[in-house]
Amino acid sequence: MPYFDAASSLPLHPVARQALLAALDEGWADPGRPHREGRRARMLLDAARETAAEAVGCRPDELVFTPSGTAAVHAGVAGALAGRRRTGRLLLVSAVEHSSVLHAAEAHERTGGAVRQIPVDRTGRVSAEEYAAALAESRAPGEGVALACLQSANHEVGTVQPVAETAAACAEEGVPLLVDAAQSLPWGPVEGPWALLAASAHKWGGPAGVGLLAVRKGTRFAVPGPADERESGRSPGFENLPAIVAAAASLRAVRAEAEAEAARLRALVDRIRARVPALVPDAEVVGDPVRRLPHLVTFSCLYVDGEALLHALDAEGFAVSSGSSCTSSTLTPSHVLRAMGVLSEGNVRVSLPPGTSDADVERFLALLPGAVAGVRAHIEPAASPPGHTIDALGKLCPLPVIELAKVIKTVPVGTVVTVLADDEAAKLDIPAWCEMTGHAYEGAEGSAFRVRRVTPE
Amino acid sequence: MPYFDAASSLPLHPVARQALLAALDEGWADPGRPHREGRRARMLLDAARETAAEAVGCRPDELVFTPSGTAAVHAGVAGALAGRRRTGRLLLVSAVEHSSVLHAAEAHERTGGAVRQIPVDRTGRVSAEEYAAALAESRAPGEGVALACLQSANHEVGTVQPVAETAAACAEEGVPLLVDAAQSLPWGPVEGPWALLAASAHKWGGPAGVGLLAVRKGTRFAVPGPADERESGRSPGFENLPAIVAAAASLRAVRAEAEAEAARLRALVDRIRARVPALVPDAEVVGDPVRRLPHLVTFSCLYVDGEALLHALDAEGFAVSSGSSCTSSTLTPSHVLRAMGVLSEGNVRVSLPPGTSDADVERFLALLPGAVAGVRAHIEPAASPPGHTIDALGKLCPLPVIELAKVIKTVPVGTVVTVLADDEAAKLDIPAWCEMTGHAYEGAEGSAFRVRRVTPE
Repeated sequence: MPYFDAASSLPLHPVARQALLAALDEGWADPGRPHREGRRARMLLDAARETAAEAVGCRPDELVFTPSGTAAVHAGVAGALAGRRRTGRLLLVSAVEHSSVLHAAEAHERTGGAVRQIPVDRTGRVSAEEYAAALAESRAPGEGVALACLQSANHEVGTVQPVAETAAACAEEGVPLLVDAAQSLPWGPVEGPWALLAASAHKWGGPAGVGLLAVRKGTRFAVPGPADERESGRSPGFENLPAIVAAAASLRAVRAEAEAEAARLRALVDRIRARVPALVPDAEVVGDPVRRLPHLVTFSCLYVDGEALLHALDAEGFAVSSGSSCTSSTLTPSHVLRAMGVLSEGNVRVSLPPGTSDADVERFLALLPGAVAGVRAHIEPAASPPGHTIDALGKLCPLPVIELAKVIKTVPVGTVVTVLADDEAAKLDIPAWCEMTGHAYEGAEGSAFRVRRVTPE
Repeated sequence: MPYFDAASSLPLHPVARQALLAALDEGWADPGRPHREGRRARMLLDAARETAAEAVGCRPDELVFTPSGTAAVHAGVAGALAGRRRTGRLLLVSAVEHSSVLHAAEAHERTGGAVRQIPVDRTGRVSAEEYAAALAESRAPGEGVALACLQSANHEVGTVQPVAETAAACAEEGVPLLVDAAQSLPWGPVEGPWALLAASAHKWGGPAGVGLLAVRKGTRFAVPGPADERESGRSPGFENLPAIVAAAASLRAVRAEAEAEAARLRALVDRIRARVPALVPDAEVVGDPVRRLPHLVTFSCLYVDGEALLHALDAEGFAVSSGSSCTSSTLTPSHVLRAMGVLSEGNVRVSLPPGTSDADVERFLALLPGAVAGVRAHIEPAASPPGHTIDALGKLCPLPVIELAKVIKTVPVGTVVTVLADDEAAKLDIPAWCEMTGHAYEGAEGSAFRVRRVTPE
């Protein structure tokens, strides 16, 4: 059964499984103990650290293992901010960072820190110039930038960020850059003079329970939480040793296959990118078409309930992900799609695991149009009376847009239709619908969105 | 090769291994995803939570999985303190808590909180009355006790603490009690109306990478760090699912064997407790003789370098632990032995894993006297000139005590000998030596310890 949600988590790599089994027997003791079992565990830990550091491109003593990628990000952000408290309390982040970075930023704000989000363009890409300008604007002693964060590649749309350029700009300003490399590390090391790097093993086929945090020498770092003697004091608690051994071994194995596999998956993703808009009416592929992860593609479909589409694909045996509001617990569209200003309804993220076959992708493309059509057919919008105002208050995505599409056909070209909609997704999807259909978005006041009919039927 | 350091970490229980292998195949996906793989992972997680909650004696929705016992303690202490900020900022802990609790307490002090340590007696036991009195002394609104912590049993000497009585006293005062149950949970649930409980899977033969944090309903709790949607927001990061499944399964398995195994190990420990003082001259068994963990016994040997003894036993194939100052990175004796006021030199902790055989214990008892004698023979104290003052400044444990023992024989009964010693362990070991040998400890001024000869040769 094809699993197309690799960006969320991967099955265990065979090398990880083998290493884990061996380390369960050899590496269960406390590596801090001087007895034979402890020394054996310590040797395994040291070897895993060397392997992982080589893949990251840092020194072994710059790398610690954490319980997860999220823990690595939280520890890295908190440690760098604490280490540079006197320089300033401003934290720069891109608007499309992983939630672990944004949640760390919120925690910083709650304790009196300041956060500035660097916006992205419609492809989800940060401008290196804009990032550099934001750095330059904040130089006052005590009010300067304590830390900058930029992901190596976006986890929802696959867009690769200008990390090397931003790292260079940061280095010039003397500001440490933390790179969330969770999505890209299996494909290659992160270039540029970054100061901190975080990653997560289960994203490359390593086991759950292991993250990486690299802190390059010379980076100010202070641990704000309770002290602990393990992992240089940067990641408290007993080391998850067998999983660490498996994580390091599988990272090396994945890297050995990365170039060939990336080329193969990139071709499959290109096929999906090219064919989805042709196969599915009113679909939009999002994310940078060139500077992107090899295995990940995201598209959105007008007039589609994302959750229903997810279930329809799941019923056909395809596991995918979605950034549509109806698939989130908060009923808001993914913050990434919001920051990009693109359509969020009927959103599907396809992320191919290594080994995905040509046939699986063909099967997916063959059944997708039917799945979308089936979901569209099942949505029954309330019959809106023809007229100039649509009351879609209390109705969830994609209903407001579906009603708008129906009603606008009934008014003369040039007429303005007002949609009353309080669903968060409407802010994104009504303008996106206008852009896709050629109608004119005239703006919103509160929950009232104004759209002028431009195109004839 | 006999491994007698169970209290530090245990090899993987066969049931844990089996469950882990199965869950590696079934539980690698993100349990937060709605697709088939995600739902399967969610079912495994829910089932593991039910199993673990039953063993802990709480509701499944009161229990979260953390990356380690240390993480559980840190999250529990921080969350309970943050939840009761308005009540007060005083944290009560026993003086013999695990370092994770004491480090969390230090972090609380660094951010303006107050900590009070409840002392223990010479067996390492907290008095429930003393704990209750400390609670009653702090009732002023805004200055009250935010949280009380008490381990269920001590990890270094095995003494069981009066948790049920203290939990009742806390409940009466409306103060939550956090119980660090890391050492006792495999043997049985913790009785009494505790509010929070922390434990660690690799202490019962579960895998590394899993801790438990239970927070009973009605306990005020606020997460001070970054938000996260997983584990009720109390333990951020991707769930370490295969290890969680293995942890829960092995806890149930260990509990099924606990009563019989406890009786068996208790008899072996009783044998060690009885025979060590007879086999090894100048050895003292520490910890409560009756109210103690079934598998753990600690003793100290006069005139012995703990690190050398550890290595001698390791060379014979026995892995043990030590709280002697020479075996710690800080060159101070274990805080537990210090709080108890007992001898710290030549300290050995024996903690028997389930399945330890009678023959292994007999072998240990057979070789221990020779190992101690060998270490004693290798220590060459500087020949102190006979006289009333011994200059042992700059000399490490056990040298100051060895010199004292030599010199005191040369002075008439009733004479006071002064030992100048700046090793931290001297504060503990010189009075303990007096207690063991019958000489009179007359007190210390700075680095000068005064001992009056009482017994004849």
